[in-house]
Amino acid sequence: MNERIRVSVVGASGYAGVELVKILLRHPQIKIAHLAVIPEEVGLPYSTIFPALKGLCDQKCSPVITADINRDSDLIFFCLPHTVSMSYMPDFFTAGKKVIDLSADYRLNTPEAFKAAYGLDHCDVAHLADFVYGLPEVNRAKIQTAQAIANPGCFPTGIQLALIPALKAELIAPDTIFVDSKTGISGGGKTPKLAFHYPECNENISAYKIACHQHEPEIEQELSKVAGQPVDIVFVPHLVSLTRGIFSTIFTELRQPHESAEISRLYHEFYRDEPFVRIMDSETSPQIKNVANTNFCDIGLKVVGNRLILLSAIDNLIKGASGQAVQNMNIMLGYPETTGLL
Amino acid sequence: MNERIRVSVVGASGYAGVELVKILLRHPQIKIAHLAVIPEEVGLPYSTIFPALKGLCDQKCSPVITADINRDSDLIFFCLPHTVSMSYMPDFFTAGKKVIDLSADYRLNTPEAFKAAYGLDHCDVAHLADFVYGLPEVNRAKIQTAQAIANPGCFPTGIQLALIPALKAELIAPDTIFVDSKTGISGGGKTPKLAFHYPECNENISAYKIACHQHEPEIEQELSKVAGQPVDIVFVPHLVSLTRGIFSTIFTELRQPHESAEISRLYHEFYRDEPFVRIMDSETSPQIKNVANTNFCDIGLKVVGNRLILLSAIDNLIKGASGQAVQNMNIMLGYPETTGLL
Amino acid sequence: MNERIRVSVVGASGYAGVELVKILLRHPQIKIAHLAVIPEEVGLPYSTIFPALKGLCDQKCSPVITADINRDSDLIFFCLPHTVSMSYMPDFFTAGKKVIDLSADYRLNTPEAFKAAYGLDHCDVAHLADFVYGLPEVNRAKIQTAQAIANPGCFPTGIQLALIPALKAELIAPDTIFVDSKTGISGGGKTPKLAFHYPECNENISAYKIACHQHEPEIEQELSKVAGQPVDIVFVPHLVSLTRGIFSTIFTELRQPHESAEISRLYHEFYRDEPFVRIMDSETSPQIKNVANTNFCDIGLKVVGNRLILLSAIDNLIKGASGQAVQNMNIMLGYPETTGLL
Amino acid sequence: MNERIRVSVVGASGYAGVELVKILLRHPQIKIAHLAVIPEEVGLPYSTIFPALKGLCDQKCSPVITADINRDSDLIFFCLPHTVSMSYMPDFFTAGKKVIDLSADYRLNTPEAFKAAYGLDHCDVAHLADFVYGLPEVNRAKIQTAQAIANPGCFPTGIQLALIPALKAELIAPDTIFVDSKTGISGGGKTPKLAFHYPECNENISAYKIACHQHEPEIEQELSKVAGQPVDIVFVPHLVSLTRGIFSTIFTELRQPHESAEISRLYHEFYRDEPFVRIMDSETSPQIKNVANTNFCDIGLKVVGNRLILLSAIDNLIKGASGQAVQNMNIMLGYPETTGLL
Repeated sequence: MNERIRVSVVGASGYAGVELVKILLRHPQIKIAHLAVIPEEVGLPYSTIFPALKGLCDQKCSPVITADINRDSDLIFFCLPHTVSMSYMPDFFTAGKKVIDLSADYRLNTPEAFKAAYGLDHCDVAHLADFVYGLPEVNRAKIQTAQAIANPGCFPTGIQLALIPALKAELIAPDTIFVDSKTGISGGGKTPKLAFHYPECNENISAYKIACHQHEPEIEQELSKVAGQPVDIVFVPHLVSLTRGIFSTIFTELRQPHESAEISRLYHEFYRDEPFVRIMDSETSPQIKNVANTNFCDIGLKVVGNRLILLSAIDNLIKGASGQAVQNMNIMLGYPETTGLL
Repeated sequence: MNERIRVSVVGASGYAGVELVKILLRHPQIKIAHLAVIPEEVGLPYSTIFPALKGLCDQKCSPVITADINRDSDLIFFCLPHTVSMSYMPDFFTAGKKVIDLSADYRLNTPEAFKAAYGLDHCDVAHLADFVYGLPEVNRAKIQTAQAIANPGCFPTGIQLALIPALKAELIAPDTIFVDSKTGISGGGKTPKLAFHYPECNENISAYKIACHQHEPEIEQELSKVAGQPVDIVFVPHLVSLTRGIFSTIFTELRQPHESAEISRLYHEFYRDEPFVRIMDSETSPQIKNVANTNFCDIGLKVVGNRLILLSAIDNLIKGASGQAVQNMNIMLGYPETTGLL
Repeated sequence: MNERIRVSVVGASGYAGVELVKILLRHPQIKIAHLAVIPEEVGLPYSTIFPALKGLCDQKCSPVITADINRDSDLIFFCLPHTVSMSYMPDFFTAGKKVIDLSADYRLNTPEAFKAAYGLDHCDVAHLADFVYGLPEVNRAKIQTAQAIANPGCFPTGIQLALIPALKAELIAPDTIFVDSKTGISGGGKTPKLAFHYPECNENISAYKIACHQHEPEIEQELSKVAGQPVDIVFVPHLVSLTRGIFSTIFTELRQPHESAEISRLYHEFYRDEPFVRIMDSETSPQIKNVANTNFCDIGLKVVGNRLILLSAIDNLIKGASGQAVQNMNIMLGYPETTGLL
Repeated sequence: MNERIRVSVVGASGYAGVELVKILLRHPQIKIAHLAVIPEEVGLPYSTIFPALKGLCDQKCSPVITADINRDSDLIFFCLPHTVSMSYMPDFFTAGKKVIDLSADYRLNTPEAFKAAYGLDHCDVAHLADFVYGLPEVNRAKIQTAQAIANPGCFPTGIQLALIPALKAELIAPDTIFVDSKTGISGGGKTPKLAFHYPECNENISAYKIACHQHEPEIEQELSKVAGQPVDIVFVPHLVSLTRGIFSTIFTELRQPHESAEISRLYHEFYRDEPFVRIMDSETSPQIKNVANTNFCDIGLKVVGNRLILLSAIDNLIKGASGQAVQNMNIMLGYPETTGLL
C-alpha cells in the first residue's frame, strides 16, 4: 500500500481554505499535516472554526511556523489574502517544497503588472518566474513538472475557459470582448464588511470595480499568450445575492461568419478530454446550480449575426479556487486528475 | 372638493395588478371601481387573494363584464397576459374610455413586428396606431393627450432610459450595443412553473431567450425613433434569485473620445427635470435595493477607453410596470406626475 | 394652514433610523430638523449614507449637539444602541422635550432588572419612572399624555400582541408559555459581524441566546401587568435567512376547554378598533410577506386539545421599531394614529 | 474483486430521487440498473432532467416495468409520492427483492392510522407488517435482516433523534412536547405550486398544517414504542425561504430537576457510536449550514428551570430522505454504514 502524501494548508480558516480541507479529507492519497491559521485560532480544533466538520476534522490548528510545516509536508497550499502570500513563500519554496498559491501574488508575470493591479511592490520578485499559471486545460504539461503553481483567480477561470477555444481558433476579434460577470458573496471572503452584511446584499445586485478589477490584467495576460497577440477585454463584475458561483456572459465579435453549431463542435472537440469542462447543448444556458459544489466549468454559446455570445458558470470556491488547486496537485503528483473531485 | 376619478383594473390578481392596486389605494384622486379577475376569483374579497391588503382593500372582485366596467370607470388599466389584452381592448377603446395597457399588445407598431415577436397574429390591428408608447421621459407631450397608452415593458424601461441620452447626443454607435440584464423572479409572473419553483431558481443564475427575447424589438423600435436611425442591440436577459428588480449593464462604443465627467454632465442635464430618473455619482453603481418598491430608475455610467458602460436599475413591477402606468395616468389626467408614487 | 412639528432623530444612520426617516418624510405634519449621527458621518447628505433616498432626503447630517437639537425640535427620536441612549437622554428630557426612545434603556422598570438583562448599571435611574411603555394597544391613554416613551422591542411587540387577549381573559396558564421566534437578519443591526455576514447566514437557521435573550424580561414584565399575576415564558429566538420580519409561534396551555372559533371571536373583539392588528381567519397562518414594510401585526390562532397555539408576524423594523415609534408620536401629538403609516 | 450490487430507483426524477442517485454514483459497491420515471421522461438521459449530472449520469431513464426492474435489480428504492408507492410495491416485494420505500406508505402500522393521516384506504395492507421503520439509530438490528424498509419522514427523523434519549431515560413528560419545525422549500417536492413559487415564498415565513401534519402520527407512533408509553406531541411546521434543511425546536417538561451538562453527557453517551448524530457543545445551537448536503443530524440542548429545550438540524433530502435510505441499504447489505455518505 502506498504512503500518503503529507499536505499542509497555510491560511486554513477562510472560505477557500475550508473548501480545500473538505476536498483533501476525501482524497485517498493525502494526509493533512498542518492546518496553519492566524494566532487567535491556533490550538483550536478545526471543527470549532467550522462546526460542519465536527467529527470529520477535529485536528488542532497550528501556527504558521515555516520550519515545522516544511518538516512535516510534501506539498503546501497557501490560502492567504493577496499580498500576504508572497511574504511567506520564499522560505517554503527554497526548502524545495511543492507549493500551490491560491492568492494572486504569483499570477502576474512582472512586478510592474503586480504593482499596477494590487497597488504595492512585489516583495518576492526573484521567484515570480518559477510559478506556473495553474489552469490545467492550458498548462497541463508545465504543471506536471512544476514546483510552484499560481492558482488562477475565480473570475479568470470561468472567463478564460469560455474564451480560449474561440481565441485559439482566431474566430473572434481580440480587442472587442465585453465581459459581464456575476459573483456570489463568498467571493468577497470571510471578513465581515458592510458590503457583505446580509441586509445590505440580500435581494440586491450591484456592479463594482467597473472595468478596473484586479483580475482584468490576469485575464488579459493569459489570453494574450493563448491568442498569440494582445487581448483586451472590458470587464464588469457584479455582486448578486447568492452564496456561491460565478456566471459570466461574454460578448464578442466574429471575424468571419459562423453558425452556432459549427462553433459548438469546435468547443466540444477542444474540451473533449477535459474532465471538468462541459459544453452545453445549443442555446442552453449553463446554470450556477449545476456547478455549485463541483469542479465543473459549464460553457454555453450562441452566434447572433456577427457576434458570438459565450456563457460560463463555475463554483467560485471550487473550480475558481480550491478544486482547481487540488486538480493542479493531482497533476503535479501524478494522480488521476479527478481524484477527490467527483 | 374635487370628485375622484373612477378607475378599474382588468386582470387585478397578478403581480403587476396588486402593485398597481397598492399604488391606487394611496392615490388621493382615485377611486377604484372594478377589480376584474378570472372567473374562479370572482366574488372573493381582493384581500383574500392578497392577504397583505386585509383591511386595506376588502372590495369584492368582479368578472370582466365590459358594459359594467365601462359604465363605472373613467380609466381602465389592463394587467392581462400578453396576447389576451388585445382581445378585450376594442370594446373599451371604442366606448371612449382612457386605457392603459400593461401588456405588450400595443407596443410594437406593426402587426408584422408583433407576429415576429409574439408568434401569433394581432387581432386588433385597427387600434395599433392609437396607442402612445408610455415612456414619460420621451413621450410626455403625447401622453398628455392620448386616449390609449401602451405601457413599456420592464426590460425596455431601464435599458432605454440608460441609452437615450447617449443615442440622442450621437455619442455612441447605434449598432454596437450589448445589453446584459438581470431580472428578479417576479418578472416571470405569478403562474407556477418549474423555472420559477423556489428550489430551482434559488441560489441560481441562468441566461434565457439569449438574443431572442420578445422585448428586444420593442427596445430597438423605440430607440431607433429616438436616435433617428436604426438601432441594433444584442440583448441577453438572466434570471437571478431575488424577487424584484432589473439591473442592466450595457456596453457601447463611443464615436468620439469623451470623459466620464462630460457624459455624466450630459445625463444630469438631460434628466434634470425628471422626477424618477437619478444619475449616480461617477463610478458609483446603481443598486437594486435603492430602487426596490419605488418608481425610480437609477443610472450609472463610466467611460473606459473608447467604450461607454451604462448601468441601470429599476423595480420591474413599479417603474417597469405599475408605477410607470400610474405615472402615465397622472400625466393623462393632469395630476402632478409623482402623485401616489413617492 | 397648520405649522409642522419639528422632529429630530438621534442615531439616524442605522436600520431603525432610516426606516423612521422614510416614514417621517411622508408624514404631512412633520418637518425633520436634525438627523444626528456619529462624527464620521456628520456633514454628509443623508442620501449619501442611504442612496435609496437620493432626491428624497439630501439634508446634511448633524452632530449630536444637545443644545442645537433642543432648540430646533419639538420631539426627538432616539435610535441609538442599547446602553448609549440613556447617556444622552437626561439633557433632552429636562429641557422639556417630548422623547421617544427606540432603545431598550427605559423599558425595564427597575435598575436591577436593567442590570440583569443588559449587564451594566443604568446611568439615568432618575427618569426611569417617567417613561411610558409605548405599546399603543395597551397603553394608549398613558401615551397621549406622556412626555417620554420607551418604544417596545421587536420581539416583545409581536409576542405581547399575540398573548395579551388570552392572558387578560385568563384563558391560559401564565407559567406555561413557550415562544419560538424567527427573526430576519436586519434585527441584528447594521454593524458587520461574522454572524450576519452573507455567506454565514444565507441558507441557514440557528437558535441563539436560548432562553436568555434580553427581551425576555421585558415581555414578562409587561405581560405580568396585563395579566395581573406573574407571567413566565420560555423564549427561544432564531436567526433565519431573510432581511426583515419576525414570526413568533407560541405554545400555551388552556385553563378550560375552548373552541378555536370562540377564542377567535374574543381576539377579533379585543382588537376591533385597532388599526394595526389583524386577526387571521381560522387555521390561517400569518405570513411575513403580508406584514413586511407595514406597521401591521398579523395574528393567527388554533386550539389543539387543551392547548392554544398563537402565531404572530410583524416587520421588525416597522411595527417592531420605527412604525410603532411614529404611531406613538401620532398619539402623543393628537394626530390620527395611522398618519404616515398606511 | 467483489461484484457490485444492482440497484434501481423507481421515481428517480424528484428531489429525493436525484439526491439518492448522486449518493449511489459515489458508492463503490453499487451499480445503478434502472432509473425509472414517468412516461414523459422515459428515454431521456438522466442528465437531461438534471444537467448537474451531465457526464456523471447520462444513463437513459426507463419506464416503470416491474418485470424488467425485478430482473435487473437486487434492491429497489421507491421515491414515489405518498399513496402511489403502495400500488407498485407488492409486485416487487413478492418477487423477493429488497425494497426501501422513501414514501410514507409503510410507516404507519395500521391501515386505520394510514387512512386518518393520508385520507384514503391503504391498498397493500397485507405487507404493512413486513416493513421495518428505517431509523438506524433505533432499529439497526431489525434493519440488518429486513427485506423491506419504510424510510422515515424528514420531520420525523430530526424530531425523533432529538427526543429519543430523553424519552428512553424517562427524563421528560411524554404528553407535554411542543415541536416547532422550520423546513426549506425543497421539502414540498418538485411539482410547481403557488406556495412554492419563488416570489411567494422568498423572504417569507409561514406556518402550515398547524397541529395536523401527516408526520405527527408517525412521530407519535415511533416515540411511543421507544418510550414504552403513549407520547403525544403538538407539532407546528413552518415554511422558510431556504432550499434545504429542517431545524426543529422542541419544548419539553422535565420530570425531575437536571442540569444541562448532565443531560448533555447522557446524549453523548447515547449516540457515542452513531456515525451520523452529533451533539453540540453546551448552549451551542445546531445550524442548517453545518448539516446541509450531509447525512448528519446535529442536536443541541439546554435546561431552563424545569424545562428541557431540544434543537435539531438535518438536511431534509439527505438524513431526512436519501442519505438515510442509503444508510439503511448499507446496513441491509452489510457494508460499512457510512459508505458513500461521508
